[in-house]
This record gives sequence, C-alpha cells and structure tokens, in this order.
Amino acid sequence: MSQTQITLVQIDNYGPWTTTPEPRREVDLQTLQARLYADFAQFVGTRDGYVFYTRFDNMIAVTNGTDRADHARIQESVSNRYPVTVSMGIAADPSPVDALGRATTSLQEAGSAQDGDRTEILRGDPLAGDRRTDRDVRVAHFDVVDATGKYTDRMNAFDTYVRIQESYLALMQHMRQEHEALSFFVGGDNIIAVCPDLDEGAFEATIGHMRETADMELQVGVGSGRSPHDAGMAAKHALEVCRHDGTRVEGATHPVAGD
Amino acid sequence: MSQTQITLVQIDNYGPWTTTPEPRREVDLQTLQARLYADFAQFVGTRDGYVFYTRFDNMIAVTNGTDRADHARIQESVSNRYPVTVSMGIAADPSPVDALGRATTSLQEAGSAQDGDRTEILRGDPLAGDRRTDRDVRVAHFDVVDATGKYTDRMNAFDTYVRIQESYLALMQHMRQEHEALSFFVGGDNIIAVCPDLDEGAFEATIGHMRETADMELQVGVGSGRSPHDAGMAAKHALEVCRHDGTRVEGATHPVAGD
Amino acid sequence: MSQTQITLVQIDNYGPWTTTPEPRREVDLQTLQARLYADFAQFVGTRDGYVFYTRFDNMIAVTNGTDRADHARIQESVSNRYPVTVSMGIAADPSPVDALGRATTSLQEAGSAQDGDRTEILRGDPLAGDRRTDRDVRVAHFDVVDATGKYTDRMNAFDTYVRIQESYLALMQHMRQEHEALSFFVGGDNIIAVCPDLDEGAFEATIGHMRETADMELQVGVGSGRSPHDAGMAAKHALEVCRHDGTRVEGATHPVAGD
Amino acid sequence: MSQTQITLVQIDNYGPWTTTPEPRREVDLQTLQARLYADFAQFVGTRDGYVFYTRFDNMIAVTNGTDRADHARIQESVSNRYPVTVSMGIAADPSPVDALGRATTSLQEAGSAQDGDRTEILRGDPLAGDRRTDRDVRVAHFDVVDATGKYTDRMNAFDTYVRIQESYLALMQHMRQEHEALSFFVGGDNIIAVCPDLDEGAFEATIGHMRETADMELQVGVGSGRSPHDAGMAAKHALEVCRHDGTRVEGATHPVAGD
Repeated sequence: MSQTQITLVQIDNYGPWTTTPEPRREVDLQTLQARLYADFAQFVGTRDGYVFYTRFDNMIAVTNGTDRADHARIQESVSNRYPVTVSMGIAADPSPVDALGRATTSLQEAGSAQDGDRTEILRGDPLAGDRRTDRDVRVAHFDVVDATGKYTDRMNAFDTYVRIQESYLALMQHMRQEHEALSFFVGGDNIIAVCPDLDEGAFEATIGHMRETADMELQVGVGSGRSPHDAGMAAKHALEVCRHDGTRVEGATHPVAGD
Repeated sequence: MSQTQITLVQIDNYGPWTTTPEPRREVDLQTLQARLYADFAQFVGTRDGYVFYTRFDNMIAVTNGTDRADHARIQESVSNRYPVTVSMGIAADPSPVDALGRATTSLQEAGSAQDGDRTEILRGDPLAGDRRTDRDVRVAHFDVVDATGKYTDRMNAFDTYVRIQESYLALMQHMRQEHEALSFFVGGDNIIAVCPDLDEGAFEATIGHMRETADMELQVGVGSGRSPHDAGMAAKHALEVCRHDGTRVEGATHPVAGD
Repeated sequence: MSQTQITLVQIDNYGPWTTTPEPRREVDLQTLQARLYADFAQFVGTRDGYVFYTRFDNMIAVTNGTDRADHARIQESVSNRYPVTVSMGIAADPSPVDALGRATTSLQEAGSAQDGDRTEILRGDPLAGDRRTDRDVRVAHFDVVDATGKYTDRMNAFDTYVRIQESYLALMQHMRQEHEALSFFVGGDNIIAVCPDLDEGAFEATIGHMRETADMELQVGVGSGRSPHDAGMAAKHALEVCRHDGTRVEGATHPVAGD
Repeated sequence: MSQTQITLVQIDNYGPWTTTPEPRREVDLQTLQARLYADFAQFVGTRDGYVFYTRFDNMIAVTNGTDRADHARIQESVSNRYPVTVSMGIAADPSPVDALGRATTSLQEAGSAQDGDRTEILRGDPLAGDRRTDRDVRVAHFDVVDATGKYTDRMNAFDTYVRIQESYLALMQHMRQEHEALSFFVGGDNIIAVCPDLDEGAFEATIGHMRETADMELQVGVGSGRSPHDAGMAAKHALEVCRHDGTRVEGATHPVAGD
C-alpha cells in the first residue's frame, strides 16, 4: 500500500511583502520565486524527492526520504539567503490528497498565510524510517503523443500553451476527483501525477477520458518505488516504452521499481 | 497605438535531450528550467522587459527595449553556461497575438523544435529605437479578490491551486479570443495580460465574464508605458487602488504611465 | 583523534573547454564557476560539510557525513545541468593534508586534469558511518581584529584586499607547514582552517607569528565536532567570545562541540 | 588614453549581519556570496563589463558601458531578492588605482561599511557616453605556463593552490606598485589585470620579475577596447597566440581591439 509523504511549502506573508512599501519589480519577484523553487528542487531532489512549483508561493513536494531535520535545514537555509521565509506542513497517507489535506491543515491551524507573525512554522510528521517500504510512492508520467509535430511546430506558441493547459486542467481534475491523485505540469507537454495504488485499468480509462473529453491523445508510464525518484524514474522508463512501441500505458502492472 | 515586441524563446531539441541517452533525473530538469527562466527574467527584466515561463522549454517574453545585440548576448551566455542552447524569434505588432504569431513562424520556418541541426536561431526584428513611443506596451495585472481568505487559508493547497488554474484558463482563453491579449499566470493568484489598446469597458466586461462563467471575483489594474516594466508598474499601482478602494478596474483610462 | 574527510572536486578538462572553439566570454565563465561552487556549497553544506572554492576549477571540500552515493548524486546533477562535468577524489585521515594528498592522488592516477577522456571519475573512500566520532573534525575560524576600522573604512578597496591576501597567504603557509592544516579565505576578513588535533598553544603561537611576521592582528575561535558544520559552528561561537571579551584564542581547550 | 570606470560594490553592514542574532551557517553565507557575485557578473557582464569577487563583501567591477540608471537597477534587484543590500561608488580615471580610490572614498564619506544606517548608497559618476573611446580599457590576461603539467597533475591540490596564490600575490603587488594596475585571480591559473596605458616593455619586465622573484613562468595576452569585454576578449586571443607560439607577451603593441 502506498504511503505518500507530502510537504506543503508556503512563503510566509508573501503577498503583502510583494507590495510593501510599494509594489516590487515583477521580474525580481519572478526570479526570486524561480530560484527558491530551484533550491527546493535540488534540496529535496538530491534526497530522492520531487517538488512542484504550482503557485510558487505555495509549492507541493513529495518528500518520502526527507526527514524532519532535513526540513528544518532547508528552512534555515532559505531564511539565511532570501528576504522571505517559508513554513512547511508534512503528512503521509495512502491517499496523496489526504496527505496534502493534513499537511495543509497543519499550516492553516498555525495561522493565516498572510499573518505576519506566523513565520517559519514546521509541523506534521514524516514517515518513520522503519515504516518505509519499496512501494510507498506511485508516479505516473504523462505526455502528449507527438506534441511537437501537432502543436509546437504548427501553432503559435501561446495557442500551443493554451492547448496544453486545457489538457492539463482536465487531467488534474479527473485524477483528483476520480483517483485522489495530485497531478502537476512540469514543462513541455509533461504531467507528473502522484497516485495512490491505481491499477492499469485506471490509467487506460484516464487516457480514454482525455481522448474523448479533451480531444488530447496522451501516453503514460507508471512506476512505484521507495522514493519519488525511484518511482518517477521507473515511470520515465515505462514512458520510453510507450514512445518506442506506440502503446498508451506502460509500467502499471509492475508494482515496484526494480522488480 | 501599442506596439508589443514579443520574443519566443525555445530550448533547442530539448525533449530528445531530456531522455538521451536515458531519462534524466526529473529534479535536475526542473532546476535547469527554473534557473534558465530566472536568468532570462534578470536579463530581460533589467532591460525593462517581462518574461513568462509558460512551458519552460518555450518561454514568451515581452522585450520592448531589448535590441538584437542583447538577444545575441543572452543566447551566447546560455550556450556558455548550460548544457542546452536556445533559439529565439522576435516580432513587434499592435496585436500581441500577431506579434507572437510572427515570432513563432520565424522559428518554425527555420526547422522543427526537435531538429538537432536547428540550433541557436535568432530571427525577426526588434522595434527600431526611433519608432518606440511611451504607449507601446499595455499591461493588465489581475488578481483574485481575497484569495487567501477564501481559498489558501480554507481549502487544501491542491484544490486552491486547481481553482486558480481553472480561473486562469478561463481568463487566458477569454482574453485571447476576445481581445488578442496574452495572459500569463505569474504565481500566487496573479495573472498578467499583455494587451492591445483595450479600454475600460473591455476590462469591466472581462471581470463580469469571469464572475459569471468561472465564479471567480477578480480585480485588475491597467497601465501603459514605453516598456513592459513601465506599463506593468503602472498596472501594479492601479491594482493597489482596487485593493484599497474595493473597486474592480483601475488605471484603464490613464493611457500612459506617468501621465 | 580527528579524521578529516576531504573531497577534491575537479572540473574535467576545464582549461581547454574555456578556449574551445575560441575563448569564451569571461563573465560567463565566472558565473558558471560561482554557481557551480554555490551548488556544491548547498549540496555538501546541507549534509553538514564545508566546501571551499580555492581555484574554482579545483575545489576542496570537507565532507564528513557525505557518503559515496551522495557524491555520485551531485556528480550526476552537475552533468545534467552544466556544460561541464566533474571528477572527485575522496579520502579521510587524521592529517587534513594527508587526506587531501590521497584524494588528489586518486584523481591524478586516473589521468590528467586536461585529459578529455578522463571524465566523471569518482574514487576513494568516505569514512564508514560506524567509524565516525564526535571529534572527527577540528575547525579554526580566524578573522582580523577591527578590519573594518583599520582597513575597509580607510584604505582603497584594492589595498585592503591586498593586505588581507598577504595575511591569508602567510597564515595558510604557516598552518600548512607547521600544522598540516588547510586554510581557506572565505570572504571579508575571514579564514577557516581545517586542522588536525591542535591544542591552544598552537593557536597562540600562530596568532603571535602573524603579528610578528605579517603585522596583522588576528583572533581565532576553535571548535571540534562530528561534522564540519558542528565544528565550524562551535568555532564561530568561540570567535564571538573573542570579539566580546577582546581575547585572541577561544574554544581550543573544549575538544568537542556541545561538551 | 585609457579611462577605466571602476565600481566598488559593498554589502551593507555585512559582518554584523552574519552573526546576528547568532552566527549563521557558513555554507549559506558562501552560497549567498557566490550567487550575489554571479548576479553581478551577469548584470555587468552582459553590459560588457567585468566584475571581480575579491573579498565577496567588497567586489570590484570595471563598468565602462554601465550607466547610473543601470547601477540603480541592480541595486534595487539585489534588495528585492536578497536579505542584504549593497552600496556602490563609481569613478573613472586613466589610472585604475585612482579610479578605485575615488570610488572607495565616495563610499567611505557616506559612512562606515558597518554602519547600519548607511545602506544602498549610490555615489560617483560614470563616464559620460560621449566621452567614451575605443581605447578606454586595457586588460592583461596572465596565466601560468603549463600549470596543469607542473602543478595540478603532480602536487596535492592545496599545494598547487598555495603556489598559485603566492604568484598571484607577487603579481598583484608588482602591478599595483609599479603600474597602478588592479590584478585579480579569476580561477584556475588565470589572473586578469586592469591596466593603464602600459606598453610591451612593461609586460616583458613583469614576466621577468615574476620569473626571478616568484620562480613562476607566466605568459600574458594584452588588449584594449571600448569596454572590459572588448579589451578582455582581445587579450584572450592574444594569450592564445602565446600558447600556440610559445611566446610570453602578445597583443601589447596593438593598442585597440579590432585594429
């Protein structure tokens, strides 16, 4: 049974800061956000986790393998190097949505995201090391079949982007409502979904749903593992099989990376 | 009349590179993309332009004020510091959509985005310095009324994110189809639209459209200027007026920053 | 007895790369080097290690607490995100100089630093986890007494810099020859020395030597610990005592952080 | 006649900040310093200037081509993205040392580098655009003949580093005292000197001085130009001639890049 450990990372009181004492230059905010995200990507990522930028002032990480001391360390590093601080809530659950729900609640209970006194909160509990298993994380890596040929090389770059965003929204809603999975656009035409224990049929149905409702042909590689990286790398390799063989779902019947 | 100068930035042959010789670690790709974006944000931004990450492998910049030699310089800098290179297409037009269309075409005509031999293309024409005016760029800065109170502090972080993404998609489609504007999510609950010469009524109607079709209450500050930064900063100040006075559209009747 | 684990990080074939096919823009090389160093600082540093930039194309790290898998991970991350790769040699020894000597030899035996075929070498052995103790690393943190008042606020910035560099060279040579310690300038007027088991008298003598031969008044905080960070933080706190009390050597008689 | 425009960049009140409320983690300080330097390198560098990290809390830039508004922009960008701010003094003079001297004085007159109330100073005057010429900047790029074969591949990495630092100190002192030039170590075995109008004999004598007093065989390429980049790139190409032909001084008789 999967146990997805989710960390919600929230920049403290960010909205007010961006306009105090007067609005700050937009590109500096964009740079700050992108670099903060990149720092989390390297910090969590070299501990085999994944981080998704989502709204940038709120980032969602899958942190199986990152313990509480590690969380405290990146929190300290941010406060030493940025003009802003971050709060974090951590929770693990077989359902990614429930894990995120509890992670979110732990921060909300500590105060508002725009409460200037609620800073550098660190709440919730990582999965104990002795409870971790080789199938804690299940990742599905989707992409669009021939996105470059159909869109990038044909449409203007904004319309391609709109098209990808439409598909992403449809997929994220479907996976959220039907499967308690959290799906994230990760650039290009790639979407990574952090899933509970879904079987091959669920992915086949999802591909079909996207074809019918969003007129978008997707393919997906699926993998499971001890960490997001293990699961995600298995999913990537499975997706390569789709690309090579022209199939639409691969990897979903191999429950564990390395099996 | 506005003259929006758009640059399409495209990482050369990026998709194949990410899986050659085998899939690369996802967090490294995420880090590379975010830092490349941050570099463009600083480069273009300190020349008073704006850059939006969109799909990361394709980024859209508004570059009034950045000339051809500058474009060549960032292209060289990327090739010196990253394992990938970028191609760029530039065009200026009263319609942001048309400018992007021509910028995109100039790259597409040079070859496919996944053609390994099509690298470091730089095509198209920046606006000549003597043709620039103080109202070339028009920027609308939207955000959600009380997003923190209604969403961030109440719903789980993913559902808030889904809600914001739904609104963003609705807004970007509306602004694209009705107004030839390019809209970009820039983090938090903020959306920046690069517009042609729209008047106050167009923004009032857009706010109404979003209220009715997407059940989302938005407010918007509008500004014009010689550069994206000038226009965007005027828009930010106008948005502050909305926040302070509880109005929904501000700045749309003042055509030029500083007037 | 101390056991300093040293990692030598070497950019592969860097010199030739910087001039191929023709000389690359200097500021891009400087940016690449500084960011690569910053990445190592965060990677090793969040694992409680220290990294010193020294020549940038060769960096020296103290890596007690970073195992072989971690080393492989940063090596992979660099190759995914930079146009260059790195090789690393690892060794542990009671003498920091001997540890570095063996780390260096392990790379030299693999080929020349400018051999285009010698890339991404990873050699040598980290200290086994069960052999680590709470006094493996000994760090001395030196700075100049009233550097701002005597130099920065009085002399031109280059002459201050020359003055600091003269002192640094004298100190690094003395500590190297007399004490088998490795000393590194870390900015401002700060020098961090990674030492074997030196006692208070050795530091008193060093301060005296610097006063007489280099006409420079130094103060030093000393600390020991399981990791460079533990030892270094103890040293920093000891240095604060010097600053507060006007003493010249603090912390050298407390062998272990936390005792 | 050369007109070197120098900018002294000083982090405001940095020393006290690094230990308030208690000493900050060293690697975070190192990361902050390196990234701040990299940001200046890109900002100034894409405007054809050079920046040298020197003490990191004080950096020296050669900024011919960067005007006052640009300086204000990077100052604002730093304050938006870092937990520290910077002050800057600017001056131009035929003598690089005198330019730096005046740039330094302009900051010193505004208050101490450790005065918490002296922040974000911007003083001094860039060279007016209409006074710029094609020979304003003269750069000499030195390196060690066969440093890899003689040192890197033979000695331990610290001893190589000590050897390079000894040479650098000797060279920087000689160039400072004899020629009013500012010399900076830029990594590897490379030293860049920003010079007044020195002729070939001066460089020949310098190479001889280093051979005799420091037992170090150097070669140097020299170039002049409108900007540090122009001059520096000419110097790099001249240094390539030294490497190819086995000569010791090249480029010093061609006064201007492109002639």
